[in-house]
Amino acid sequence: MEIKFKEIEVSTKEKYQIIDLTYEIEEFVKNCGIKNGICLIFAPHATTCFIANENEENLKEDIITKIKRDFEGKWKHDLIDDNASAHLASSYLKQFLIFPVKDGKLIRGTWQNIMLIELDRARKRKVIVEVIGE
Amino acid sequence: MEIKFKEIEVSTKEKYQIIDLTYEIEEFVKNCGIKNGICLIFAPHATTCFIANENEENLKEDIITKIKRDFEGKWKHDLIDDNASAHLASSYLKQFLIFPVKDGKLIRGTWQNIMLIELDRARKRKVIVEVIGE
Amino acid sequence: MEIKFKEIEVSTKEKYQIIDLTYEIEEFVKNCGIKNGICLIFAPHATTCFIANENEENLKEDIITKIKRDFEGKWKHDLIDDNASAHLASSYLKQFLIFPVKDGKLIRGTWQNIMLIELDRARKRKVIVEVIGE
Repeated sequence: MEIKFKEIEVSTKEKYQIIDLTYEIEEFVKNCGIKNGICLIFAPHATTCFIANENEENLKEDIITKIKRDFEGKWKHDLIDDNASAHLASSYLKQFLIFPVKDGKLIRGTWQNIMLIELDRARKRKVIVEVIGE
Repeated sequence: MEIKFKEIEVSTKEKYQIIDLTYEIEEFVKNCGIKNGICLIFAPHATTCFIANENEENLKEDIITKIKRDFEGKWKHDLIDDNASAHLASSYLKQFLIFPVKDGKLIRGTWQNIMLIELDRARKRKVIVEVIGE
Repeated sequence: MEIKFKEIEVSTKEKYQIIDLTYEIEEFVKNCGIKNGICLIFAPHATTCFIANENEENLKEDIITKIKRDFEGKWKHDLIDDNASAHLASSYLKQFLIFPVKDGKLIRGTWQNIMLIELDRARKRKVIVEVIGE
């Protein structure tokens, strides 16, 4: 059994921003020496999330429109901080994704690009990629 | 460490359709030779999702009613395609599920049937089941 | 390869209740003898969910407000039972979480407390914690 970790640092620039990490993650999986197993993509943050979806400009705008509409509002947490909507969105959406790894490759659909969504503000973000298998 | 894969092909027949895969997945886990570990259920698609919930006709209707109400609408992605609502729903819902495997059995609750939801249209869909453990 | 299981029993007291399990889960991971791998947290229930988020009173109220607003309503499943909203909420939210385990510790962000949300009523709930790795 082999376990490999990689940390990706992301500097976000806006309150809402979608950042495609597919290439970096796939390269890591391809070169990590593990043939079969799973790949966990994890953000140690409560105000970001991931999607595995199509990297198409209109769709990315739609996703941000939808998140704003669903989570922005008057919230009690904003009495002590200013990012309740980001915490709520990350509770509903996903702070981690998992993909099969087979024959040395991360398995995903054609339209499943792996993207981080910043939900809070311009910040430094960390993404942990972990492959376990053999 | 053992890793076993199975691919399930599903032919969906309608825009919104809920398909129960519990039996096929449980049989695979039971017979794959792995006693303890985890089972990943993954769809390489950006316009389907999974739920682990009660296979009851009224509830399944409710889930589809809820998804339509939450995701159908006027979206920019529909200028170039016609399935924005399916991409949005799969971003919010789950393209993968994970269950513990213990003593040769997939662990799930009585009301956690493993179901694929077609969100787009009648299509051929692929479900990857992966068990890792020993 | 090592695989360790722990079961946590939780007695919920109200229809909506958020219960922090971070300490108990982290102690198990620390003492289970596995240095690197992943930790799966799984509820064998279709009417609870988990979040990894800030344990702050206002935010927890906001989350319950949001869940009520999004999932309570007139549903067909309530003709035969009374908990459709709980089944719908658990379909959208997460019945499982996964965290990396590195150097004998569960990796999480400062604001990612691991919390169970009761969505149905006062009940006995079971949480399965599984660590796989080496």
